[in-house]
Amino acid sequence: MQTRDIFANISPLDHRYSRRKKNFDQIGKYLSENATIEFQAEVELALVKVLARKGMAPEQAPAEVEKAINELTTEEIYAEEAKTKHNIRALVNCIQKKVSKDIRPYIHFTATSYDIVDTANSLRYQKAAQELILPKLKELHKSWAEIALHEKDRVQIGRTHGQHAVPVTFGFTIAEYVARLGERIEEIEAKADKLVGKFSGAVGAYNASSIFFEDPEEFEKEVLAELGLKPGEHSTQIVQAEPITDFIHALVSTFSVLAAFADDMRHLQRSEIAEIGEHFGKDQVGSSTMPHKRNPINYENVKSLWKAFMPQMTTVYMDQLSEHQRDLTNSASSRFIPELITALLSAAARLTRVSSKMAVDQENIKKNFEQNKKMIVAEPLYILLAAAGHPDAHEAVRKLTLMAQETDFSLRELVEQSQELQGYWDKFTRRQKELILKPEKYTGIAAEKTEKIVKNWQHKFDYDLKTEVL
Amino acid sequence: MQTRDIFANISPLDHRYSRRKKNFDQIGKYLSENATIEFQAEVELALVKVLARKGMAPEQAPAEVEKAINELTTEEIYAEEAKTKHNIRALVNCIQKKVSKDIRPYIHFTATSYDIVDTANSLRYQKAAQELILPKLKELHKSWAEIALHEKDRVQIGRTHGQHAVPVTFGFTIAEYVARLGERIEEIEAKADKLVGKFSGAVGAYNASSIFFEDPEEFEKEVLAELGLKPGEHSTQIVQAEPITDFIHALVSTFSVLAAFADDMRHLQRSEIAEIGEHFGKDQVGSSTMPHKRNPINYENVKSLWKAFMPQMTTVYMDQLSEHQRDLTNSASSRFIPELITALLSAAARLTRVSSKMAVDQENIKKNFEQNKKMIVAEPLYILLAAAGHPDAHEAVRKLTLMAQETDFSLRELVEQSQELQGYWDKFTRRQKELILKPEKYTGIAAEKTEKIVKNWQHKFDYDLKTEVL
Amino acid sequence: MQTRDIFANISPLDHRYSRRKKNFDQIGKYLSENATIEFQAEVELALVKVLARKGMAPEQAPAEVEKAINELTTEEIYAEEAKTKHNIRALVNCIQKKVSKDIRPYIHFTATSYDIVDTANSLRYQKAAQELILPKLKELHKSWAEIALHEKDRVQIGRTHGQHAVPVTFGFTIAEYVARLGERIEEIEAKADKLVGKFSGAVGAYNASSIFFEDPEEFEKEVLAELGLKPGEHSTQIVQAEPITDFIHALVSTFSVLAAFADDMRHLQRSEIAEIGEHFGKDQVGSSTMPHKRNPINYENVKSLWKAFMPQMTTVYMDQLSEHQRDLTNSASSRFIPELITALLSAAARLTRVSSKMAVDQENIKKNFEQNKKMIVAEPLYILLAAAGHPDAHEAVRKLTLMAQETDFSLRELVEQSQELQGYWDKFTRRQKELILKPEKYTGIAAEKTEKIVKNWQHKFDYDLKTEVL
Amino acid sequence: MQTRDIFANISPLDHRYSRRKKNFDQIGKYLSENATIEFQAEVELALVKVLARKGMAPEQAPAEVEKAINELTTEEIYAEEAKTKHNIRALVNCIQKKVSKDIRPYIHFTATSYDIVDTANSLRYQKAAQELILPKLKELHKSWAEIALHEKDRVQIGRTHGQHAVPVTFGFTIAEYVARLGERIEEIEAKADKLVGKFSGAVGAYNASSIFFEDPEEFEKEVLAELGLKPGEHSTQIVQAEPITDFIHALVSTFSVLAAFADDMRHLQRSEIAEIGEHFGKDQVGSSTMPHKRNPINYENVKSLWKAFMPQMTTVYMDQLSEHQRDLTNSASSRFIPELITALLSAAARLTRVSSKMAVDQENIKKNFEQNKKMIVAEPLYILLAAAGHPDAHEAVRKLTLMAQETDFSLRELVEQSQELQGYWDKFTRRQKELILKPEKYTGIAAEKTEKIVKNWQHKFDYDLKTEVL
Repeated sequence: MQTRDIFANISPLDHRYSRRKKNFDQIGKYLSENATIEFQAEVELALVKVLARKGMAPEQAPAEVEKAINELTTEEIYAEEAKTKHNIRALVNCIQKKVSKDIRPYIHFTATSYDIVDTANSLRYQKAAQELILPKLKELHKSWAEIALHEKDRVQIGRTHGQHAVPVTFGFTIAEYVARLGERIEEIEAKADKLVGKFSGAVGAYNASSIFFEDPEEFEKEVLAELGLKPGEHSTQIVQAEPITDFIHALVSTFSVLAAFADDMRHLQRSEIAEIGEHFGKDQVGSSTMPHKRNPINYENVKSLWKAFMPQMTTVYMDQLSEHQRDLTNSASSRFIPELITALLSAAARLTRVSSKMAVDQENIKKNFEQNKKMIVAEPLYILLAAAGHPDAHEAVRKLTLMAQETDFSLRELVEQSQELQGYWDKFTRRQKELILKPEKYTGIAAEKTEKIVKNWQHKFDYDLKTEVL
Repeated sequence: MQTRDIFANISPLDHRYSRRKKNFDQIGKYLSENATIEFQAEVELALVKVLARKGMAPEQAPAEVEKAINELTTEEIYAEEAKTKHNIRALVNCIQKKVSKDIRPYIHFTATSYDIVDTANSLRYQKAAQELILPKLKELHKSWAEIALHEKDRVQIGRTHGQHAVPVTFGFTIAEYVARLGERIEEIEAKADKLVGKFSGAVGAYNASSIFFEDPEEFEKEVLAELGLKPGEHSTQIVQAEPITDFIHALVSTFSVLAAFADDMRHLQRSEIAEIGEHFGKDQVGSSTMPHKRNPINYENVKSLWKAFMPQMTTVYMDQLSEHQRDLTNSASSRFIPELITALLSAAARLTRVSSKMAVDQENIKKNFEQNKKMIVAEPLYILLAAAGHPDAHEAVRKLTLMAQETDFSLRELVEQSQELQGYWDKFTRRQKELILKPEKYTGIAAEKTEKIVKNWQHKFDYDLKTEVL
Repeated sequence: MQTRDIFANISPLDHRYSRRKKNFDQIGKYLSENATIEFQAEVELALVKVLARKGMAPEQAPAEVEKAINELTTEEIYAEEAKTKHNIRALVNCIQKKVSKDIRPYIHFTATSYDIVDTANSLRYQKAAQELILPKLKELHKSWAEIALHEKDRVQIGRTHGQHAVPVTFGFTIAEYVARLGERIEEIEAKADKLVGKFSGAVGAYNASSIFFEDPEEFEKEVLAELGLKPGEHSTQIVQAEPITDFIHALVSTFSVLAAFADDMRHLQRSEIAEIGEHFGKDQVGSSTMPHKRNPINYENVKSLWKAFMPQMTTVYMDQLSEHQRDLTNSASSRFIPELITALLSAAARLTRVSSKMAVDQENIKKNFEQNKKMIVAEPLYILLAAAGHPDAHEAVRKLTLMAQETDFSLRELVEQSQELQGYWDKFTRRQKELILKPEKYTGIAAEKTEKIVKNWQHKFDYDLKTEVL
Repeated sequence: MQTRDIFANISPLDHRYSRRKKNFDQIGKYLSENATIEFQAEVELALVKVLARKGMAPEQAPAEVEKAINELTTEEIYAEEAKTKHNIRALVNCIQKKVSKDIRPYIHFTATSYDIVDTANSLRYQKAAQELILPKLKELHKSWAEIALHEKDRVQIGRTHGQHAVPVTFGFTIAEYVARLGERIEEIEAKADKLVGKFSGAVGAYNASSIFFEDPEEFEKEVLAELGLKPGEHSTQIVQAEPITDFIHALVSTFSVLAAFADDMRHLQRSEIAEIGEHFGKDQVGSSTMPHKRNPINYENVKSLWKAFMPQMTTVYMDQLSEHQRDLTNSASSRFIPELITALLSAAARLTRVSSKMAVDQENIKKNFEQNKKMIVAEPLYILLAAAGHPDAHEAVRKLTLMAQETDFSLRELVEQSQELQGYWDKFTRRQKELILKPEKYTGIAAEKTEKIVKNWQHKFDYDLKTEVL
């Protein structure tokens, strides 16, 4: 086995972001080169199974082939490829060498290379989605749901343009991501389900298989069904590009949701805002020269990985173009899809870790909220004035806020000083007046909506929430 | 009305690719700045309608507002914006000036700017999809379906890596795009349906609306229902980014299908291949110095527009990140989405035009097919030998083809000269032998599959095909 | 003249970001479709001038052609193109119609379309750079230089990871952008100078011109020299792609510098930081429902335009690939380069406007600086301890800062309480001690460096600075 | 040493495109994680050298530190990082453990992490450029120069829009790439030279170093000079983003030139064109089911790698934005730059290999040339007619070519049949007539220009060309 010092590797995914053996083994099961070969061999096996079932290949063929592929090593296939310059022919040769002479003809029978390559890729990405990506994203989702529920009532100033706007609750802030990630998880699931295989031969017209099978489409369906896959409506040498394109889009747009969360959190961690933090390890160093710093490196890392991989979608779009019944210019490029998935998994795992130990700084949340407390009520005041018939409420309140900023008076006091406005004030209901007097009540239905969103996804994803509500 | 020489414009979409007035008016109805304003005004109207229905606004409010917005001009709103520096406040001010005093308070009642902006965008993109994009793409789809059906039996050499492989039919070649575009049309339709609006106020917590409505989510639903829209699960100041992201992805990935088709066609138009052409206008000039040239400029244009707009998806992904309850850095960028849609529509219209006058050069298709005729049968020969038990069929045929290339013998003749191979030959069925002897029969189920695909979409999209089968 | 309501346009560049007539006229001079045609006509004229000078064309040819092109309208050329389907042939036909019969043959003599198109583009982009882009960027640069110089001594907390680090001055913060933009301006200048033209005919081998000229390369040089351009080393039908690719890269990377500045400023404008602001117009509305808000919409706009146009670089890279002596798939796409330039100019103008009225909030800068004042000195303390021989200074200070955060003691007081550390303290020089005691002195050479950078560029770009130093 | 089966790796660069140990070792010397650490340690050493030279650190410090870093393993640093969560602090700790107590304080003295990280990266990328990238690209360049020179006189039909245009020579076709790659090599060289380091501390204001040094900028220069680097004009915690941005742009735009070449060659290898080929290995398999195929897999691979990595430029532009004195969101992303360089090196090596064994098919080049021979002369005919005073030469020739296509007559014969045209013909010089009669002469100065270009670069890059001219 050709081994290598992992730090001799070029890709950070191979030397840095995959160092925990356990994680790496999980990922490697679908996304390493070994996995590529294993899934390709599994497709070759599925073919032989169907041939045997149909009585075309010897009865014992599946067992022999299964044994053979269990003995295969990636290394021997690469050694064979060095001779043939063709990776699938190399795989086929290696399997054939390990089975009896009468079984050999059924290896790769009527297949073209990409019947194997594309089917194996759809299979491993679908399985990676079901068994790895979706579970990991649901773990992350749950950690957010827990924060959202726990913090559903904690009043936080809402921010638009980086400016204090009107109040939300911190739970509601997090509920945004519960909703967005939940919906993305469903999209990944839907698009993973739609990944297709093919068994239609060199140019997709079933030229070879129609020599032997009355209904070659039926034969294709049988082979793919063996793997839990379906064929697309049309294929050339390769499967239609759109199912994988949609699947990668689902991943990339999910990555953006993670990056958006990371951006929000790292800004909330700014020295001047400091509403959240991360529990630091005892020996952890914040900065090599500024030992007092608590840097949001995990959130920064997630944003940075997103920047590294999001543009790969451009590659995927370019790969939708393949000349005539295919050119091979999507081959090397599509070999990098596992990198994107690995990066997304790394980001998800990191966010789960850091979200589960998020420290919410109650005092700073409160302090920030109070900073512009007297301004916050400008919105309800304007709306109530307008509703009460004030002909130019927006302008009136705009002037009031300018005055409030220049003086020590609150908006309420300024209203009182204005005979005209006080007239409107008297028409307000008790609850409406309360909203002006107590801005912390002006959170709309933030808490109820948070709870509703969390329950919706808890129900859909069927997980327990250990969090107590604040 | 501020007018301008159209050639004073910067964007080719505004001076070059939109010059046919009829087309431009259709597109402008959804995608011009006038359209933007009209749809925004429509959202303001929907709000007033619901308020009136609920008895909160005067009964005659909807009629007055409707009258007012019919009189609005984009110019006056821009003039107002020059003062307020705020586009939606400008719109609101302009409407308010045109209605009676007692109705004014209900304009924009409890709304934040992006309740209007985002809802209006979802509305106009959804309508543009239903009324313009999908119909235009279906026209293109039909023109391809007609070619596919007409050409379903015309034998064409299949090409992989730009090399002659095994035969397909030209109809089957086109059927690839019938299937791919058909499926994309369905994806655009599905994602347009999922575009959402919002009426949840400045930070998405229904702060303002909950002052007046028992169930502000119900109120939001009512306003949006007035427009045929639904709310998303969670919004901040803006709607969740993913519905529009998915919608644009559906458009971009469709654009790639058009570009892939264009690439295939322009290569088929190469001087040495020349399997298709385009009927040229009587006065049309191919080249300014080479008057004999027949350049595939329409296909080149489509590929080129795709290159110009596909990367815009990167912008859309970046716009998924908006800090906290939103920052405005997605505002200017999202104003360019209409350009992408216009470019896609231009490409679709151009391809429909050029597809409907596609000239298929029967003789060249045949000539190209015959060029490697004797090699084509290498595949079935190898497969039949393998199936007949030849222990190393691939290698045997590889050597045979080398020999055939160096000599004048056909593969069949070389088989005959080999005692060993002739033994296998004798085992082949009559039909199998025919495939070796008549490569033009080796098209698998290309014709049947083409017909099946065409019929499937004809049924789904419910159009008539005027084409007779070849 | 075909005119259009500007709000009927699709591109925001044509209806929104180009509404000030003066600005638009400046930009339109290089970047509108009218400009495209004018520059192309200028190239045709240059050709005739050289031919006349060489005695090949009649002496009066240049004057006649000049008169003709002055009378040309874009509209008539487009009308002609509608017939010929070829834009340069249309131009040539229109010029020919306006000159005497004996001059007609010399219009476009030996030229291919792209001799004209590519040369005209290089010319207009070079001129746009020299006459518009560089001057506008230098205006912006100057406005930053003024802030930097004025603020060179104002102590500001430096921030890394959004966390308070060690002090800088606000001038130094701005000096970063003085240096970066200055250097980009030089890069744009250098790459604009390297834009090349061509006059080598249909496939670049001077096939046509070598019929008439002994040294067709010399002839090419003469025609281009007439326009102030040079040829590239090799051309096909088109000029080498790299000069324009480098030029656009220079623009895009400059745009990134503007976006980086915008990002920094909008974060400094956050409610909790509030170190800078923008003078608001008297009637300006911050938010439609929150009249108290002061949103950094200009900075947001610049970031947003960058997001919209930066990805266009991908298009430019794709356009480096043109099959054989050229395919036309870079034609439509390259027509969008003026959009990118217009967006950059719009962003630069906006930033100049907003920078020149930047309001620096002295109190908030001071308040933020003091927030972590006692922690700031951790860095010099650690370094001085290390320099004084402390074996594990980093760890010692890390523990000290944790203690300082948990207690009311300053680092200095904690040092005093530790016998070991006090021993090191005693070794520090007076100035070194002062840095620990007065963190506001710990600004390194921020002020001197700021001044040096500003002077460097002031000298290079030769502008006056009206700013007084703080 | 933590080793791993190379096929357990995720990145194709680590399991597939780096399998030849020799190549990999060369690349790994600059681009592996081990290299990262080694270059960082080298920067720490340079610092100590300067400190010792200045008499601040003990005289034996450099020797001790050099010995220490020679003993360092990446593994122990990662183990330390697992504790400190900070990679540079981990490096510093590991070095400190290996040196005497009195030297420890001088490790990392006054430095911030990114003084080390960014300086080390500039250093290794600059060295990789000088010692690896440029030499490899020059090898490729030479292989192309050899083809160009050898083929300078071989007449080939020039192609625009994939259509036969007018003749070039095959050498001239290749000379395009000699010129473009040569110029890119110079650009890479120039931009590698401009990569900068920094030693200005945590926020770039030399806060720490100014405690100890009268002129901290001078100190920075000395440390960097030790490594052959210079500082930028301004730095924050990190170096200015533009030098590395320009460097990567130079690499990416070079990659595009390689991809453009690859595209041209694979199209020339199409079955119907077949002007070039690749010598196939004896055992090489073209296709798993079509043993007769000769697929241009190497050219396809190069195009495909370009598609995979070109979009990474978007990441680099995004990384130009770093908030305030830096945020860390460019850290993980910039760790992937070595992937891009590795891919470019892989593509260059592959193209060198395949170019050096390029087979030019003389017969097919000739056959293709003759296909439209009678049309080729349309251009010179039109130009000569125009020059001879024909009032509407373009139109006349356009009609003639249509007639020629419909009949068996050559253009010359059709001219003869036209009294009017024959009149012009008689005015042509002997050489001009020859061009019409012998289209193979109509190659302009293709051969001379090819030779001139090749000689220019041979002179600049100072290599021998073993090729004989055809």
